[in-house]
Amino acid sequence: MGTLTELFDPDRVAVVGATARDGAVGRAVTSNLLDDFDGVTVPVNPNYDAVLDTPCVDDVAEADADLAVVVVPPSIVLDAIEACGEARVRNVVVITAGFGETGEAGATRERRLADIAEEYDLNLVGPNSLGIMSTPSGMNATFGPENALAGGLSFMSQSGAFVTAVLDWANDNGVGFKDVVSLGNKAVLDETDFVDHWGDDTETDVIIGYLEGIEDGREFIETARETASDTPIVVVKSGRTSAGAQAASSHTGTLAGSETAYEAGLDQAGVIRAESVDELFDAAGILGSQPLPDTDAVAIVTNAGGPGVMATDAVGDAGLDLASFASETTAALRESMPDEANVHNPVDVIGDADVDRFREALQTVLADENVGAALVLAAPTATIDFDDLGDAIRGTVAETDAPVAACLMGGDRTREPKRMLQNAGIPCYFDPGRGIESLATLAEYRDIRAREYAEPMSFDVDRERASEVLSSVTDRSDNRLGVEAMALLDAYGIPTPTGEIVDSPGRAREVAADIDGGVVMKIVSPDILHKSDIGGVAVDVADADVADTYEDLVTRARNYQPDATLLGVQVQEMVDLDAGVETIVGMNRDPQFGPLLMFGLGGIFVEVMEDTTFRVAPVSAPEAREMTEEIRSAPLLRGARGRDSVDVDAVIETIGRLSQLVTDFPAILELDVNPLVALPDADGGTNAAAVDVRLTVDPEKLDP
Amino acid sequence: MGTLTELFDPDRVAVVGATARDGAVGRAVTSNLLDDFDGVTVPVNPNYDAVLDTPCVDDVAEADADLAVVVVPPSIVLDAIEACGEARVRNVVVITAGFGETGEAGATRERRLADIAEEYDLNLVGPNSLGIMSTPSGMNATFGPENALAGGLSFMSQSGAFVTAVLDWANDNGVGFKDVVSLGNKAVLDETDFVDHWGDDTETDVIIGYLEGIEDGREFIETARETASDTPIVVVKSGRTSAGAQAASSHTGTLAGSETAYEAGLDQAGVIRAESVDELFDAAGILGSQPLPDTDAVAIVTNAGGPGVMATDAVGDAGLDLASFASETTAALRESMPDEANVHNPVDVIGDADVDRFREALQTVLADENVGAALVLAAPTATIDFDDLGDAIRGTVAETDAPVAACLMGGDRTREPKRMLQNAGIPCYFDPGRGIESLATLAEYRDIRAREYAEPMSFDVDRERASEVLSSVTDRSDNRLGVEAMALLDAYGIPTPTGEIVDSPGRAREVAADIDGGVVMKIVSPDILHKSDIGGVAVDVADADVADTYEDLVTRARNYQPDATLLGVQVQEMVDLDAGVETIVGMNRDPQFGPLLMFGLGGIFVEVMEDTTFRVAPVSAPEAREMTEEIRSAPLLRGARGRDSVDVDAVIETIGRLSQLVTDFPAILELDVNPLVALPDADGGTNAAAVDVRLTVDPEKLDP
Repeated sequence: MGTLTELFDPDRVAVVGATARDGAVGRAVTSNLLDDFDGVTVPVNPNYDAVLDTPCVDDVAEADADLAVVVVPPSIVLDAIEACGEARVRNVVVITAGFGETGEAGATRERRLADIAEEYDLNLVGPNSLGIMSTPSGMNATFGPENALAGGLSFMSQSGAFVTAVLDWANDNGVGFKDVVSLGNKAVLDETDFVDHWGDDTETDVIIGYLEGIEDGREFIETARETASDTPIVVVKSGRTSAGAQAASSHTGTLAGSETAYEAGLDQAGVIRAESVDELFDAAGILGSQPLPDTDAVAIVTNAGGPGVMATDAVGDAGLDLASFASETTAALRESMPDEANVHNPVDVIGDADVDRFREALQTVLADENVGAALVLAAPTATIDFDDLGDAIRGTVAETDAPVAACLMGGDRTREPKRMLQNAGIPCYFDPGRGIESLATLAEYRDIRAREYAEPMSFDVDRERASEVLSSVTDRSDNRLGVEAMALLDAYGIPTPTGEIVDSPGRAREVAADIDGGVVMKIVSPDILHKSDIGGVAVDVADADVADTYEDLVTRARNYQPDATLLGVQVQEMVDLDAGVETIVGMNRDPQFGPLLMFGLGGIFVEVMEDTTFRVAPVSAPEAREMTEEIRSAPLLRGARGRDSVDVDAVIETIGRLSQLVTDFPAILELDVNPLVALPDADGGTNAAAVDVRLTVDPEKLDP
Repeated sequence: MGTLTELFDPDRVAVVGATARDGAVGRAVTSNLLDDFDGVTVPVNPNYDAVLDTPCVDDVAEADADLAVVVVPPSIVLDAIEACGEARVRNVVVITAGFGETGEAGATRERRLADIAEEYDLNLVGPNSLGIMSTPSGMNATFGPENALAGGLSFMSQSGAFVTAVLDWANDNGVGFKDVVSLGNKAVLDETDFVDHWGDDTETDVIIGYLEGIEDGREFIETARETASDTPIVVVKSGRTSAGAQAASSHTGTLAGSETAYEAGLDQAGVIRAESVDELFDAAGILGSQPLPDTDAVAIVTNAGGPGVMATDAVGDAGLDLASFASETTAALRESMPDEANVHNPVDVIGDADVDRFREALQTVLADENVGAALVLAAPTATIDFDDLGDAIRGTVAETDAPVAACLMGGDRTREPKRMLQNAGIPCYFDPGRGIESLATLAEYRDIRAREYAEPMSFDVDRERASEVLSSVTDRSDNRLGVEAMALLDAYGIPTPTGEIVDSPGRAREVAADIDGGVVMKIVSPDILHKSDIGGVAVDVADADVADTYEDLVTRARNYQPDATLLGVQVQEMVDLDAGVETIVGMNRDPQFGPLLMFGLGGIFVEVMEDTTFRVAPVSAPEAREMTEEIRSAPLLRGARGRDSVDVDAVIETIGRLSQLVTDFPAILELDVNPLVALPDADGGTNAAAVDVRLTVDPEKLDP
C-alpha cells in the first residue's frame, strides 16, 4: 500500500466544474471518467442538475468523494480547493492552469494554493495538470483523448503534451500502464512523492518519468535509492543543455539546476537515465518483463554474419562482454550445427538455417553457465518463417532464467511475430544495437540493486569554531573569504600547513622561527585575487629574510592597489609540491541538489583537461573513494610513471570532512580548496595538506 | 556515366548455372530476373533447353550477354568465369561461395579467380555475393526474395544478409534504391570502385554502405573525397570494437585494421558514419531529399512545451545552434500568436493551436535569415488533425529553401501523414532528437562539401641518406632502431639536438667540448629499452665529467646486461624541457590505411590521459595543424596558464616531414619521436627538437 493509494484508487470522483459544453475541459474529464471508471463519477456544478446524463450536485461537499478533479476557472479555483478541504476530500487534482507558469500574479496564486493544501493536508496534483489515470479501476481523470492500456508501468510527466503523445503511441504499440500522472506545476505533490508511493505499489513493475526539474534533490536521492532497490526507475530529464534548460524554464518556470548536479544526483539516486522516448520505453519494457542477468556475458545467435558483427560491436559499446562458451557448449554446437556454422560466439547458424536449428543453438548457449543473457538475431531467408521463429524463441525463453532479446531484421513479415514476442515480454527490434542496449539496461539495474549505500562520512569536528570563522564575513564589504579562513578547515580537522596571518614584520619573524626550514609568505587581501601576478607571494623565504619580505609584499600590494583592504601577510610552512600531487576539492551549491562536491587534480588537469568528477554531498566513504578513482588522471595518485603513490585515504578523508562542512553550513555557497596537496604515504604522518582556500558565504544563512 | 554503367545497365544478362530446380540459387536468380528485368534474360545450362519457360543456351558464348551471373558449383566456377572472359562478357557477378571465407583451399581458388579477372579485364563482383540490382531496368540479379523499390540511394554491402534485411525493411517503409550490390569477398571490385562509379552516376543521390573492411584505405580516401564533393556517402563500418573486429574476421576473412585508422581515414575521406540501420537511413533519407542549411541555426515550432525542451537539448547534443530570431520575426509571431505563446525559439504555439497557427509560425520562422533549418514538432491535441498538419508542412516546405524535418508524436494517427511527408522528401519521426539529428547530418555534409583539400606537405629531403640509415637495420639481430637512427630525422630536415654517438671517453669529451653548456649522455643499445631505469642516462654533465660519465654509463650497462650489444654512448646538447612543451609524434602502419600518424603531448598526456589524435599520412598542412588543435591539451601549446606559447608552426612542419618520411618508406613499420620538444617562438631559430626516436623496420621492404 503506497502513500497515495486513495488518490489513484478512489471510490467516488467529483469533477468540480463539470459541464457538457462542447470543447470544455470539464466535459472532457467528465466524459473520460464516465467512459471507463469502475467507481462513481459525480459532476459538481451549481448551474446544472445533470451533466452528460449523470446527476450533478451543487457543491463538492455533497459529492461524498474521495478524489476531486478541479477544472473551474482560475478566478475561483482557490475557493474550490478550499471547499474540497472543508468537505474532507483529501485528494485533489487541479487541472486549471494560470499559476506559476504565467508570471508573478499566477505565482502568488500558486503559493496560496500550496498554503490551502497544507492547511487541509491535501494530496494535491498540479495545478496546470492534464490529470491522472489508473488502469485497474479504468479511471481516466484527464482531459486527454484516450485512456491507457493496462500494464505494469507507472508514469509521471512534467509535460502534459508528453503524456498525450506517449499514450497515443503506447496504445498503438500495446504498451500498458498502471498509473499515469501529469505533474503540472508540482505545487504540492512532486516526483519524490510518486516515486515513494509507487515503490510500495505491488502492481507497479517499473517507474518511468519525464522530468524538467527535481524539486528537492537530496530528498529525491534518498527516496529513489530505497525505491530502486526493488522497483526500477527510468527517467528522461530534459533541459540537459544550457539552451534546453532555458527552454524548460520558460516552459514550466522550473529553475534548472546544473546538468552536472542532475547527472551526479540521478546516478547517486540509482535512477536509470534515458535520452529519448525510444530509450525510455526500451528500458522500461525489458525491465518490466525479463529477469536480471547473473553476468555481463552475452551470447549472440544469428543466421546473418554481418548483423552478428554489428551486435558484437554493440556488446562492446554497451559495456557488456561477449560470452566465452564452455567447451561442452562448443562441442554440442559442433555436433548439432553444419560444418560451415560458427560455433563460437557470435554463433552463426548460417543462411540456410531453419527454425529448429535456431532453437537448438539458442537452447545450447542458454544452458551454458558462462552466458548471462542472449540475443537472437535473424535476417530474412528462404528457410526461416519469422512467425515460427517467434514461437520458437518464446518457447525457449519460457524455459530459461536468463534474459533474452530478439532482433528480427525485416519489414512487414516481422510485424506479427514482433507483437507476439512483446506481448510475451520479450523485446523485439530491427536494429541489433537496440537489442543489446536493452540487455545492457538489465545489467545496469542489476548493479543498482546490488548497491550498498553507506552512511555519509562523519567526524568529530568543532562546529562552533567553524561558525565563528564564517561569521567573520559579516564584517566585510563582500561575502568572500580567502586564506584568512584557513581556521575553518582546521575546525573540521582538515590538515593545513602550520602558519598564521600576521600584521607586523616582527610577528612574521616569530611565526617563521617556529617553522622548520623556509616559509611561504602571501599577501592576504579580499581585494587582490591574483596574488602571484602582482608579486604578492614569496616562497622558500629564509628566517633572516622574513621581515624584509613582509615589508616588500605589503609595499607591492599598496602600489598595486592603494585602496585594497590588507588583512595581513600569511606566513606558512612550505609543502613539498614536488613530492606530492596537487588536487582540488571544490563545492558549489545547486538550487535543487544542494552542495555539489568536485574533485580533480590541480592545475592543468582541472583547468585545461576538465578532468573532474562530482557528487552531491554528503558523501559516504565509498563515494569519496570513487571520486578519486574515476577521474582520468587517477593513476597519478596511485604511482603512475614511476612516482610514489600518494596516501589516497588521506584525500578521501579530506573529501569527507569537507562534505560534512558544506552540509553543516548552508551559508557556504561556494568553496574551493586549491591545492589540496596529496603526499606519499608516510606512516603515522598527515599526508594531505590544504594549502589555500576560497569560499563565498551567504551572511543571511548564518546561524544567529 | 560511371565506370561500371554496363554492369548495372546491361541489355542481356546470362545466368550461368540457371535451373528450375526448387530451392536452387540458380532458379531464384533466373526467376528474379524474369520477373522484372526490362532487358533479356538468358539462362545458360547445357542440361536444359529451357529454364522457367525461357530458352536456355549451352554456353555463355552463345548468350551474347553483357553481364553474366555465375551460380555454378565451386568446382567448375573458375572455368565458368574463364568462359565469360573468352566470350567477351566484361561484367561478371559471382554468387558461388566457397572461396576465401572457407579457408586455405578457398583462398587459393580466390586468387586464381582474381588472376582470371585480371587477364580478361573483368568487372567482377563477388565471389560469395548475393548479387546486384538496378531499379531503372528492374534488374534483380540476386537470389534474395524481393526486388527493390526505385529511388535515389545506391547501396553496397559486405554482408548479403544485411542486403536482404534492409530490402525487406525498405520495401515496407517505401525506401527506394538506384543500384544495390552485395560485395561478397571483393576479389576484384571493391567499395572504392563503386564509390567511384556512383559518384559519376546522375541517378544516384546518396551512396550508402555496410562495410566490415576497406581494401585500400588510401585509394578509398582519394576516391571518396572526390565523390563526396557532390554525392554524400554514408557508411556503417562494423567491427569497430575488438570483439566485433574478430567476429568480422571470422565472418568474411577481413583482416581488420584498427578502429583508430578507420575513424581517421573515413573522416579524412569525407564519409559520414552511421552506427545503426536507423542512423544509416535517417541520414540517407534527408541527404537525398532536403537542401543543405546555410547555417547551423535551427528553429523549432511546437505545440508541446516538454517535447520542445527535448528538441532543444538535441540541438545542443548534435552540435547545432538554436536560432536567435530577428526582431521582425518575434514581432510577427507576437502579432499572429496568442498571448500565451512563446515567440522566442523554441516557438510554442501552445496546446490549442490549429493547423493554420502552426503553418503561420513555420512560415514566419523560415522567412528569418537567421534560421538555417526548422523542426516542426507536434503532440496530439483536440485541435490538431495530423493529416491536415502534414499537408500544411508539405505546402510550406515546397516554398522554402531551408531544410525542414517533422516530428509527429503519436501512434496510429501519425502513420499516414508520416508516409505522405516521407514520400514528399520530408523526414518524419516520433522522437524529437531523431528529427534534430537528421538536420545535423545535413550540416555535417555541408561542411564536408565545403572542404578544400590541400596537397600533402612536401619538403626537400635527403632520401638517399635516409635510406642508408634504414638499411643499417640489416646488420642487426632485430629490426628495431633507436637514437642511433637520429640521422634519419636529420635527413628529412627534422631538427635534432647537436650530438653524436661515440665509442670512447675521449671522443665523448671532444663532442661535449663543441656543445655549449652541459650535455645529456645516454647508453645506446638495442637490448636495453628502459635506459633511465638502469641509470643509463646522465643529464647536465659538465665537460670535465664527460669522460668519467662515459665509463660509468658503460659499466652500468655491462653490469645490468653483460651480453647486451652496446653501440656506444650518445652525447647530446641539453634541450631546455622546462621552457618548452614535450610532444610525441608517432606512426604505425595500418593494414588497410597505411601509415597512421599520432600526435599528442608527452608524458602523462599520452600515456595516462590518452589525449591523442590520428591522421592517415601523408597529411596536408591544414590536417597537421588540426592535429595540434584538436587534442584536449592543445591550450598548453598555445600558452595556457601563463606559459609562453610554443612555435606551433615548427611542430606542424615536423609532423609534415615525418608524414613524408613514413610515406616515402613503407619499410618503416612503426616510428616514435618522443619527445619532440616544442619551444617558444624565437625569431629565426629552430623551435622544435626531436630528442629521441625509436622505429621498427621491415628489412624486406627496403629498397634494394
